[in-house]
Amino acid sequence: MVRTHTQIVSTRGQGDAHDITGVGAAALAASGLRAGVATVFVVGSTAAVTTIEFEPGAIADLNRVFETLAPRDGDYKHHLRWGDDNGSSHVRAALLGPSVSIPFVGGKLALGTWQQILLLELDTQPREREVIVQLVGE
Amino acid sequence: MVRTHTQIVSTRGQGDAHDITGVGAAALAASGLRAGVATVFVVGSTAAVTTIEFEPGAIADLNRVFETLAPRDGDYKHHLRWGDDNGSSHVRAALLGPSVSIPFVGGKLALGTWQQILLLELDTQPREREVIVQLVGE
Amino acid sequence: MVRTHTQIVSTRGQGDAHDITGVGAAALAASGLRAGVATVFVVGSTAAVTTIEFEPGAIADLNRVFETLAPRDGDYKHHLRWGDDNGSSHVRAALLGPSVSIPFVGGKLALGTWQQILLLELDTQPREREVIVQLVGE
Repeated sequence: MVRTHTQIVSTRGQGDAHDITGVGAAALAASGLRAGVATVFVVGSTAAVTTIEFEPGAIADLNRVFETLAPRDGDYKHHLRWGDDNGSSHVRAALLGPSVSIPFVGGKLALGTWQQILLLELDTQPREREVIVQLVGE
Repeated sequence: MVRTHTQIVSTRGQGDAHDITGVGAAALAASGLRAGVATVFVVGSTAAVTTIEFEPGAIADLNRVFETLAPRDGDYKHHLRWGDDNGSSHVRAALLGPSVSIPFVGGKLALGTWQQILLLELDTQPREREVIVQLVGE
Repeated sequence: MVRTHTQIVSTRGQGDAHDITGVGAAALAASGLRAGVATVFVVGSTAAVTTIEFEPGAIADLNRVFETLAPRDGDYKHHLRWGDDNGSSHVRAALLGPSVSIPFVGGKLALGTWQQILLLELDTQPREREVIVQLVGE
């Protein structure tokens, strides 16, 4: 069986982090499914989903490493195409990926105590993000 | 229900990028499935799959960041083992990962307008890549 | 149908690598399933799962790149919160991600000959890791 939950999340630009664990957990509870996989996916090419210990320090550390790896004010070929300023966003998003797949067992997501689902905005502008929680199971 | 589609893609060596969104979309259309998850997976340890805005600038930017992070002509322990020259390929592929999981709803992949499925060749030689689109749904 | 296999893996601290391909393959064989997707997931926010050619050189190369990108002895905001010393662990784990999704066809994981499933410990201490192989298929 497949159950789909869609959630809109308003973000405030590059590095803005949202703990969406509750979105996944609520979708699972509402589904009545007991065992399977939750695919948590963000629509778009300048945001990403992964897991992390969701506390401000770890988020800041991740953003700082990204700033070193793909600086916001760096030179990007992507900027030449559309006059965009979000080349760093595309590189970071491709590296992290748009989705994470989390097993659920006994009706619960199999996350650790200090492991949350992170929606990370990477675009340079605030966005309205569509997050899809796709539950496949029984 | 599970439906499997396999596609061979000929690549031209490190950094060669292929937009395989159409492969996934065609597999989904042929399956008749309406809701579920498409797992797009590349067989092998020196290529990767993610999503990106598929235009030459963004691809070049991603490749440039990889060249800084894991330079092709760097010193790699992997080279000592087999006389290979693709240590950079293994590091980049492990970071990006071999698969992406994309929900589909109403018979359509839930991708954004500017979000395509990228097969990125990371090996130093041209390869024949086997891409598997595994559809699980109903 | 869904089948769950859980495995505990004892690790020895940051950079310790485990080839868990056999765990996934055994779970699949025991399940009797023929076609679907295996989601291999590690519980916790300081370890990761991906695929790689599992040989000591490639593992060392990946760890070295991580040491450049997010050095173990760097300054991390996360350290200020709990007195932890594993800020590098969180950044590396978020980048790699906690899971990999691998299609199986004809009762076999669709991995390449030189492509193994890697559990990479990223924490600074030895840990007992819970790995979940969630099989969804038919």
